[in-house]
Amino acid sequence: LTDQAVRHTRVGIVNPLIGTEFTDLVGDELAYLEGPYLSFDVRTITRGPASIEGRYDDALAVPGVLDVVGEMAPEVDAIVVNCFGDPGVEAAREITRVPVLGAGDTTMTIATLLGHRFSVVTVLDVLGPLVEDKCARMGILGRLASVRFTDIPVLELQADPERLLSRLAEESIKAVRDDGAHVIVLGCTGLTGLGERVRAALARESLDAPVLDPLPVAVEFAVAAHRLGLTHSGLTYPAPRLKLRTDMAHRA
Amino acid sequence: LTDQAVRHTRVGIVNPLIGTEFTDLVGDELAYLEGPYLSFDVRTITRGPASIEGRYDDALAVPGVLDVVGEMAPEVDAIVVNCFGDPGVEAAREITRVPVLGAGDTTMTIATLLGHRFSVVTVLDVLGPLVEDKCARMGILGRLASVRFTDIPVLELQADPERLLSRLAEESIKAVRDDGAHVIVLGCTGLTGLGERVRAALARESLDAPVLDPLPVAVEFAVAAHRLGLTHSGLTYPAPRLKLRTDMAHRA
Amino acid sequence: LTDQAVRHTRVGIVNPLIGTEFTDLVGDELAYLEGPYLSFDVRTITRGPASIEGRYDDALAVPGVLDVVGEMAPEVDAIVVNCFGDPGVEAAREITRVPVLGAGDTTMTIATLLGHRFSVVTVLDVLGPLVEDKCARMGILGRLASVRFTDIPVLELQADPERLLSRLAEESIKAVRDDGAHVIVLGCTGLTGLGERVRAALARESLDAPVLDPLPVAVEFAVAAHRLGLTHSGLTYPAPRLKLRTDMAHRA
Amino acid sequence: LTDQAVRHTRVGIVNPLIGTEFTDLVGDELAYLEGPYLSFDVRTITRGPASIEGRYDDALAVPGVLDVVGEMAPEVDAIVVNCFGDPGVEAAREITRVPVLGAGDTTMTIATLLGHRFSVVTVLDVLGPLVEDKCARMGILGRLASVRFTDIPVLELQADPERLLSRLAEESIKAVRDDGAHVIVLGCTGLTGLGERVRAALARESLDAPVLDPLPVAVEFAVAAHRLGLTHSGLTYPAPRLKLRTDMAHRA
Amino acid sequence: LTDQAVRHTRVGIVNPLIGTEFTDLVGDELAYLEGPYLSFDVRTITRGPASIEGRYDDALAVPGVLDVVGEMAPEVDAIVVNCFGDPGVEAAREITRVPVLGAGDTTMTIATLLGHRFSVVTVLDVLGPLVEDKCARMGILGRLASVRFTDIPVLELQADPERLLSRLAEESIKAVRDDGAHVIVLGCTGLTGLGERVRAALARESLDAPVLDPLPVAVEFAVAAHRLGLTHSGLTYPAPRLKLRTDMAHRA
Amino acid sequence: LTDQAVRHTRVGIVNPLIGTEFTDLVGDELAYLEGPYLSFDVRTITRGPASIEGRYDDALAVPGVLDVVGEMAPEVDAIVVNCFGDPGVEAAREITRVPVLGAGDTTMTIATLLGHRFSVVTVLDVLGPLVEDKCARMGILGRLASVRFTDIPVLELQADPERLLSRLAEESIKAVRDDGAHVIVLGCTGLTGLGERVRAALARESLDAPVLDPLPVAVEFAVAAHRLGLTHSGLTYPAPRLKLRTDMAHRA
Repeated sequence: LTDQAVRHTRVGIVNPLIGTEFTDLVGDELAYLEGPYLSFDVRTITRGPASIEGRYDDALAVPGVLDVVGEMAPEVDAIVVNCFGDPGVEAAREITRVPVLGAGDTTMTIATLLGHRFSVVTVLDVLGPLVEDKCARMGILGRLASVRFTDIPVLELQADPERLLSRLAEESIKAVRDDGAHVIVLGCTGLTGLGERVRAALARESLDAPVLDPLPVAVEFAVAAHRLGLTHSGLTYPAPRLKLRTDMAHRA
Repeated sequence: LTDQAVRHTRVGIVNPLIGTEFTDLVGDELAYLEGPYLSFDVRTITRGPASIEGRYDDALAVPGVLDVVGEMAPEVDAIVVNCFGDPGVEAAREITRVPVLGAGDTTMTIATLLGHRFSVVTVLDVLGPLVEDKCARMGILGRLASVRFTDIPVLELQADPERLLSRLAEESIKAVRDDGAHVIVLGCTGLTGLGERVRAALARESLDAPVLDPLPVAVEFAVAAHRLGLTHSGLTYPAPRLKLRTDMAHRA
Repeated sequence: LTDQAVRHTRVGIVNPLIGTEFTDLVGDELAYLEGPYLSFDVRTITRGPASIEGRYDDALAVPGVLDVVGEMAPEVDAIVVNCFGDPGVEAAREITRVPVLGAGDTTMTIATLLGHRFSVVTVLDVLGPLVEDKCARMGILGRLASVRFTDIPVLELQADPERLLSRLAEESIKAVRDDGAHVIVLGCTGLTGLGERVRAALARESLDAPVLDPLPVAVEFAVAAHRLGLTHSGLTYPAPRLKLRTDMAHRA
Repeated sequence: LTDQAVRHTRVGIVNPLIGTEFTDLVGDELAYLEGPYLSFDVRTITRGPASIEGRYDDALAVPGVLDVVGEMAPEVDAIVVNCFGDPGVEAAREITRVPVLGAGDTTMTIATLLGHRFSVVTVLDVLGPLVEDKCARMGILGRLASVRFTDIPVLELQADPERLLSRLAEESIKAVRDDGAHVIVLGCTGLTGLGERVRAALARESLDAPVLDPLPVAVEFAVAAHRLGLTHSGLTYPAPRLKLRTDMAHRA
Repeated sequence: LTDQAVRHTRVGIVNPLIGTEFTDLVGDELAYLEGPYLSFDVRTITRGPASIEGRYDDALAVPGVLDVVGEMAPEVDAIVVNCFGDPGVEAAREITRVPVLGAGDTTMTIATLLGHRFSVVTVLDVLGPLVEDKCARMGILGRLASVRFTDIPVLELQADPERLLSRLAEESIKAVRDDGAHVIVLGCTGLTGLGERVRAALARESLDAPVLDPLPVAVEFAVAAHRLGLTHSGLTYPAPRLKLRTDMAHRA
Repeated sequence: LTDQAVRHTRVGIVNPLIGTEFTDLVGDELAYLEGPYLSFDVRTITRGPASIEGRYDDALAVPGVLDVVGEMAPEVDAIVVNCFGDPGVEAAREITRVPVLGAGDTTMTIATLLGHRFSVVTVLDVLGPLVEDKCARMGILGRLASVRFTDIPVLELQADPERLLSRLAEESIKAVRDDGAHVIVLGCTGLTGLGERVRAALARESLDAPVLDPLPVAVEFAVAAHRLGLTHSGLTYPAPRLKLRTDMAHRA
């Protein structure tokens, strides 16, 4: 192992939705984390949907994610896909040995370490079955207290920040009081940066629950993985066989 | 309800791998099922991989599957995606109210009705975690005895039919004797038509186990769904919201 | 395999409750499904209870079911036991190689293919633990959202059809709204024929959920099994050993 | 509560297989347990199979069990059905408020208190799925290490006692060494009295595992239930509704 | 085996909280069970907390429990740790071959035999995750309907007996009506003796549910274990290796 | 949030076994991780066992762990208990709001993110049930492929380093080949520093599996938690109530 003390981790961030403005926006959101030990390479896909709010959107975003992962993998130490739905994360692990982390699966896994059960508070009710299916696949469905939603679509999240925050707080409080959640996971990376304010809203109700903001959680875990020299198992994610494939801008 | 006695079901078949020869090949495989009550519309995707043997191949096949589903949905009564991995099946259900069935999820579900536990006998070991993940998501992991494989890739299945059959029989017998399987599911639609011969091989060892051939199982279930007027729930698979999306030949 | 195009399936229906009037009644209920591809042989047990509303009734019905199954098996292609509780279904599979399907286990299994979670809406609360126990045994308890009931006993189902329908609709709507069901299963074959009207009631509340009517679902699945040449595993359901047994009108 | 010190428990034993010789045989097996605090009323069913080795035998035994339970309930403090398959136990709980215990469900439940996982060592392989289904229903499938069998049918158990014992010991040792069992449950009440010798055989291999003999385990638990004033829940096992029922010698 | 008829069981009771008054108090609570077949040796730990209401209290009580178990094991036939949290029970099983039973794990296991699901009604909400964790470890979490609490701390249980009883009854009724419990388990041995009155309160609401009082349940099960010659598995609970250990008054 | 760029994390390490030499030894093991962003405060308990190889040892270590946690909590940013068994971790979370991480629960949780299933390779077979119980409690038992052991006690780990390494490699290879593990977790912090060499041994067999070394994994996760401002939920781990407690050197 090299000297940990000065090790720098360069984390690639893939925005899996079209819209060039997201490259700068997410860079700004993460700027407070940068320094001698951590920097970012933020890129946005060039084909796919404007937002991901279901299985169809997710499916359309994946080829674009694979494009970007294929391009950036040689230049970074770890890659985070910036969407709670983890589009393309498992497929991407087959095409690179650089650790690829989803904001969703990483954060829900970490949540299980912090308390008895967690709830996911997200944007739309249609995402409930997707979150539950993912937890079932991961084996942690029994640790999921509930999935709650603000009913504000992704593309309207910026429209009224105070209403968004008050809806997140309201649903988080219900998750604790009615569903037995002891930990809150924000279920959309469009909510990045709001975790601390939701935690404060819970605290005002004397509810001492951690609130996990998926993008920074996945970033810090990416740093930890890099420092530890860990990546996904080549047995679970072997390299794809050579064969004819069309429709790929990326290089596997 | 209309008169069931003369009801005809037109089943659309989507081949989720590139290669125009598959359109005729699969049409031939299914011809014996056609008649007054059932006919087929077989189509093959025009972008994607030459075969599906992992998450990366699966991800690349999905947009092509969605293209074909979008095109054929108005002209058929039910749609079957002709791959045990069910690429795009759940996403497709969001863009049509015609029932969309996967060869894999349908067949494994039916298998649970026929005996205590089932094993999947498939092509490559890399598919094991994918089958287990799907069963975990469906809730039937406890009914899966094992996943076994012939170690013959999809594109070599036609090369030596006798060796293929003997490998399938060998692994099926081990699944029963060593893993406790009471039902065998062939885990690749490239094996279509071999179920009866595998069953006979088991019978020669005095092992009376049903062997499920996924494509015809999914087709007959599609007919049953159509006759019963059933399709997937609009609550689980709501129509996607209107938004900007690139890279779609299909129309949702 | 013989020519599928003209294959006819003769489905034996066993009514597992005494009352000769049920033979004609159920024949009438199923008449709309008959035609060149499907016909029925409906028979009613001659010893047992007047209705099945618990474990004791179920136990008393079973010997009568085995009588009828033993008699009709040589004359039919598949057998459906016409009760959501599936009395005698597993025992019957030990005495015939003709597929024997329960209305309950078949329908709940099919329900898992159509949406995220299903609820069973049935007659009496005492059936809740029986449905849950069956789902636990089948491995699909995690897919069951709830069991709800109309509180109208089986023998009073015909008394006030409009009240019955309105109670079914009411509980189905609650199952969706309060319990998270995405699919509704009618939990008693005394409700045969009401599925479409319950579905319409849900639709009027903008709830797009399939409603499964167990008897026709099991019948169409019986047809599919026959066409596919599938029956239950001889490894799970081996023939009983020869030994002294009293109290059997039937012949194993 | 009355004075525990002199409380006497009269346990009714139901032999669920025809053969009048079993009444005396089982009485003899249990004689060593009798005394001031415990006595037995052993009865044998008069209709049903000569032994229970599957679902069909089980189904045929149940009406006879209900006959005997109905008759003996007013005269005893607790009832034990003397078969590991628990035929009629749950149905019987609906017709009496006297505690009704199965040899199988009671013993497997107690086994979970004594060590990490248990194996059932029984007579025939066909019983494996039945034991697993019961554990699934009870929720303790994860505590079951394996089901092993001697391959000696019930009616031949007396033929060669030394071979029987050596087969039981052999399979019990394999259950510990190969399957990870820490507790052994004898899976047939035809094996009553052999527990101590199997335990000794394990001890000779330095395997310190308890061996549970189902009939005495259920009897002692019946005594405990009676002393504690406990019986099965009337909410799970409500009395059957009044209705027409034929084929009943017993009175509910 | 010796003659069961006159076998006497001496049960050691360990009070895992400091306070010498508990030795007499618990002796009095159990006096009604004593007689020719059963007597008690009640001892109280001399270091640890005044009550156990969480993981920290539990951890502090354990060394004291091990002290007492080590001392009393040679003089008794079975040992019951008198706290629903089972402090030190598993550790104690490593230092003696005398059966060691917890009031909690024994009672919840027995509860699964009496009805469909059980609820635990206990003192404080902080105990909910501990009860659920224990059920998860035991494999019976699916049988637990809910954990409810009176919100009266252990050390105030004696302050207002009527309020305590009314709170227990109230929560037990809610457990049945709202959570689907069919069996009630009192979740603290500070509630010893109240089971019958809670059962009567349920009965007044026409709710026929057994109510389990953990200390006598564990005692009677200890008697049964002793009579059956059963103890915990030496494979799960092997004797500790010889090594340096400080801070032990007890002798392993 | 403060400036992440220069944030330093001071991690307290608790050695839960007596032996003052461990303070320096563990400090040396971790030295390579120290630098501007991370430093350690290593302390060793002063009462308890010489090593932890079961529930009894674990129980005896806990009060000493609580002593040290109480003392060091005000001086560090996060605390890691340096034992795979996580002695006292949950109890300690009740007495401090500084994040307290176990080497075992943290590492097994992270392992679920890296591949399909993981195996734990540890020292002695008696630890198998403890690892499985912990996974059951955490909900990830389905992700655990197996627990394997070298059969070398903790206090002999240093005796023959090459034999130790070769046994670890051997069992890890079997875990992958025979048990289906895709990730290896070293199951004892006495193995710290051997992960990379075990990984290399697997690689020589063409098995590309990550190997997790629990102490550094827990340390890096502690850093991540501190940087993210996360700690355990106060709802799951509330502060203990004020009451009399003896035998405490520490201050809660």
